Amino acid sequence: KTLEDVLKEKGVITEEDYKEVNKSRPVSYKLGQGFTFTSPDEKFQGSIGGSMQLRYTFTDLDDANGSQTDTSEFKLRRIKLFFNGYAYSKDLTYKLQMNLAELNNSNKNNTSKFLEETYVNYRILDEAQLRFGQDKVPFARQELVSTTALQFVDRSFVTDAFKPSYDIGLALHGKVAGGLVGYQAGVYGGAGQNTFRSSNDNSFAARIVANPLGDMAYSESDVDNSAKPLVSVGASYFRDTIKNTAGALETNNLSFANTKSGWLGMGLSTFNPNEKIDTNSYGIDAAFKWHGFSAQGEYFLAQADGQTTNNTLRAHGFYAQAGYFILPGQLEVAARYGYLDPNRDVTQNIQTQTQGAVSYFFAKHNLKVQADVTNIHQQYATKSNTDDMQYRLQAQVIF
Amino acid sequence: KTLEDVLKEKGVITEEDYKEVNKSRPVSYKLGQGFTFTSPDEKFQGSIGGSMQLRYTFTDLDDANGSQTDTSEFKLRRIKLFFNGYAYSKDLTYKLQMNLAELNNSNKNNTSKFLEETYVNYRILDEAQLRFGQDKVPFARQELVSTTALQFVDRSFVTDAFKPSYDIGLALHGKVAGGLVGYQAGVYGGAGQNTFRSSNDNSFAARIVANPLGDMAYSESDVDNSAKPLVSVGASYFRDTIKNTAGALETNNLSFANTKSGWLGMGLSTFNPNEKIDTNSYGIDAAFKWHGFSAQGEYFLAQADGQTTNNTLRAHGFYAQAGYFILPGQLEVAARYGYLDPNRDVTQNIQTQTQGAVSYFFAKHNLKVQADVTNIHQQYATKSNTDDMQYRLQAQVIF
Amino acid sequence: KTLEDVLKEKGVITEEDYKEVNKSRPVSYKLGQGFTFTSPDEKFQGSIGGSMQLRYTFTDLDDANGSQTDTSEFKLRRIKLFFNGYAYSKDLTYKLQMNLAELNNSNKNNTSKFLEETYVNYRILDEAQLRFGQDKVPFARQELVSTTALQFVDRSFVTDAFKPSYDIGLALHGKVAGGLVGYQAGVYGGAGQNTFRSSNDNSFAARIVANPLGDMAYSESDVDNSAKPLVSVGASYFRDTIKNTAGALETNNLSFANTKSGWLGMGLSTFNPNEKIDTNSYGIDAAFKWHGFSAQGEYFLAQADGQTTNNTLRAHGFYAQAGYFILPGQLEVAARYGYLDPNRDVTQNIQTQTQGAVSYFFAKHNLKVQADVTNIHQQYATKSNTDDMQYRLQAQVIF
Repeated sequence: KTLEDVLKEKGVITEEDYKEVNKSRPVSYKLGQGFTFTSPDEKFQGSIGGSMQLRYTFTDLDDANGSQTDTSEFKLRRIKLFFNGYAYSKDLTYKLQMNLAELNNSNKNNTSKFLEETYVNYRILDEAQLRFGQDKVPFARQELVSTTALQFVDRSFVTDAFKPSYDIGLALHGKVAGGLVGYQAGVYGGAGQNTFRSSNDNSFAARIVANPLGDMAYSESDVDNSAKPLVSVGASYFRDTIKNTAGALETNNLSFANTKSGWLGMGLSTFNPNEKIDTNSYGIDAAFKWHGFSAQGEYFLAQADGQTTNNTLRAHGFYAQAGYFILPGQLEVAARYGYLDPNRDVTQNIQTQTQGAVSYFFAKHNLKVQADVTNIHQQYATKSNTDDMQYRLQAQVIF
Repeated sequence: KTLEDVLKEKGVITEEDYKEVNKSRPVSYKLGQGFTFTSPDEKFQGSIGGSMQLRYTFTDLDDANGSQTDTSEFKLRRIKLFFNGYAYSKDLTYKLQMNLAELNNSNKNNTSKFLEETYVNYRILDEAQLRFGQDKVPFARQELVSTTALQFVDRSFVTDAFKPSYDIGLALHGKVAGGLVGYQAGVYGGAGQNTFRSSNDNSFAARIVANPLGDMAYSESDVDNSAKPLVSVGASYFRDTIKNTAGALETNNLSFANTKSGWLGMGLSTFNPNEKIDTNSYGIDAAFKWHGFSAQGEYFLAQADGQTTNNTLRAHGFYAQAGYFILPGQLEVAARYGYLDPNRDVTQNIQTQTQGAVSYFFAKHNLKVQADVTNIHQQYATKSNTDDMQYRLQAQVIF
Repeated sequence: KTLEDVLKEKGVITEEDYKEVNKSRPVSYKLGQGFTFTSPDEKFQGSIGGSMQLRYTFTDLDDANGSQTDTSEFKLRRIKLFFNGYAYSKDLTYKLQMNLAELNNSNKNNTSKFLEETYVNYRILDEAQLRFGQDKVPFARQELVSTTALQFVDRSFVTDAFKPSYDIGLALHGKVAGGLVGYQAGVYGGAGQNTFRSSNDNSFAARIVANPLGDMAYSESDVDNSAKPLVSVGASYFRDTIKNTAGALETNNLSFANTKSGWLGMGLSTFNPNEKIDTNSYGIDAAFKWHGFSAQGEYFLAQADGQTTNNTLRAHGFYAQAGYFILPGQLEVAARYGYLDPNRDVTQNIQTQTQGAVSYFFAKHNLKVQADVTNIHQQYATKSNTDDMQYRLQAQVIF
């Protein structure tokens, strides 16, 4: 029992007082948001919390082109701490989030992924807000869903192939008509997460979303067992200019520029070793939720043009996923298909993934265990196609 | 005076109420555990705290084989912050600990040691608990003693030569009969702290401990001036398979695989440059405390077998230490001897360390100053043996 | 309304009680110092807070020696979190500060700048205090001003050319006669921030300051619109021995040893590739504030002597800045001039910067927006002198 409880029982404070003072308790806890501290004058508020994603992965590699070593891996996939709140006024909010798991041995020459959302947001109106600092570039619906609110163990590989991910910049965003329409538009450094470059090429991104049946949060799986149907459709655009320096991109800190998994990184040989490359990316997406059923899909289209050679690289891809709660709010099964053609002018280079997932939610997305199975199909021009199988188990807790 | 004090004095709340509400104060402080926040429904609790070990070391190198430069070094030895608590239920606990001092210049290509204990623990019973995430591999008593609860400025070099230290995995552990017996058994990634590898070789560790006179915590020095004698005996086992890749181990993030101080790392030339090495390590240990006196010792035995060459590397070593409080709970003197033979099939390679320590405890292990002197004896086959002297002074505060 | 407010209104507690209990609230907030937690017995206190400096920089490079690419850069300049307080006694304080922005891509091989102030301070008297751990080496007034309390977007390049910045060591410091005189003297590792070396060369620094009209904090701009004039004069001394190892200094983690911007680093070719270099640095400085006007200046003189060659490198420089609040406490304009001769025995190598700034303070230094313009003049012996222009805009929030 708290002091407030005792005083109410004794009649020292009234029911109304009780409600009033509980609103301004110096310490409170809200599920998914950690512990919150509020100054007595209510001009300052700060919350501290975190999340853990602990993962086991077994990968059974296809031996079609010779014997492969399977891998059995325990991993701290994401270990996050956040510190956010408002200061001086409720209209001036800040967020600071770290992903401690990025300081691992695989990533030892790149600590720039430690710091994630790090910004100050000023709300002029709900419809017009300014955000300065580092945030996710507003491109791709699934990227804007927090990794703690996914339907599968992780995002689709197609989203990772097209998204820019984090960058530093200045954005204007807002919600119109109570969330029926939302928009974001911003200019960014253009080199990615906590990364700087000696250039005057900045990137630009814009996204618009319509929620005709009412505001719909960026969160997968219908954990709330929505009584009324919810639907959301969106469109995203992103442009950037990146220099090819001696055959390597000047940055690999943008997800689509990663040489192993990004459309631009994989197709880099299209361009001269020292030319600037203009990229334009487009995405359309939709999501739906009702009575425990949810579905989501996106189509991406991207093109890169060399400024010197005029060579062109074109990529496209999509994913579609759906899930249903067998036990409402608790046990969900889901399926997903993803397709990526990283270079439309080349044949025999298609990648597809077919996935099935089972998730148990103890406290919605805040405490859950997820398992998924993935068939990773990869075409090769010069050797046999492969079908690797990946089995993942992940425990997630937000505290 | 707190509000609770004032209300008790005025008779608004009773003595019983006072005790009750103080149990659920939103903020409390407990020595060694930092500030603790509890949600009003007592379903969530989080603690924030940290510790600092600030050290000065003077090393007087033996000039037997030519003139050596002595070193005078100030060091942030360990700067830790922790965040732990329970969530959703008191049976579901989590811990997240960082060692900020690892982000130093000596370690600049390896940030993986930043994140230490990072796990979720679920207690089914006291006797059976599951732990998923990163923790110390349960091998070696002294490794399981927190670095803040040591009798000397740091652990024995023998413990460091045999212990795996941190790894990510899944463990089952518990205490039986109120702590008379404790056990831990787990499967781990096998590559060490925040480190992953492309292999299906996982490691396994198990440890059992008996405390016949009652539960005895993993803590050196009898700071509590125990009225009743306490004794503890334990045994540990660890196995792992590590690949030798072009003459270097695939991981150096396991303490025993360190090329300068680990038994396996030092004896690496025994094996072919590209073979897998199976390792088996064994340890037995005992500890005793009574009336300000304490003693502790361990013996380690380890063997590595090359899968291709069938070559074998065998190492063993031990340490024994004892301390006594001249001023009970405050001033302690201690001595330690450590012996390491990193390769039993080679002569003239023994290392020994003889150490003496004086410690002043202002608030048990939470606030103390320790000084120790070490004679580091090293045998060499091809040159004179050396006896380096090391003088260390360390201030420790847990806040 | 807080519980305390309600109980006072109802007459349950008196006005005096109210004041008393508000002093020992478990959670409080103080501008610029974050949220503070106090244990019920008032023996322990901890504060958590942070600051962000979000910056946009446009640099217009002079094309005098051929076409240059201008740069347009968004940057998380400084993202800090701090954790400080007292433990066991109000005389034993600790501070731990991190700069998360240092884990960026430009700095990827050097994480040692993550940890900043990290020390334990013991106050014997106000006049005599011991500090053990990492702190700013007490050399240069402007270095001792927090980066959150500057008049311009950042420090003068002249200060950066001469200051050592952070190091680990033991210092004695105090304030005499209520702050009319202050002093600091310490011995440090000598290799800089979280950096160790195998050597017995430690560095030494001392600083004395006089504030004849009353204590004057290290803070630029007269945000308090001081009714009485404040003046401060100071002198600093620093010595260190650094080894030249194959033409590179054994550390570049001391600001003055940086090869691009430090006086010693820039003049390194004066010395033999493997000799030890003795450095001696001197600084004098003054500051003044009255009715919204403020002025500050420093002169630095430094000399390096090669132990083997007896070659000598001599550098000097100064800056002077002044500002005035057009709207008291809110809108300030300021100007600064800085001059650096990194090698007095060489001609045509002078660097100067002329700067103008406009700052708007929403809540003193805690919430402000600053813009400045800099003309960067650089002499060259073999090509045309250049005049680059730099435009910076920075938002700062302390939360």
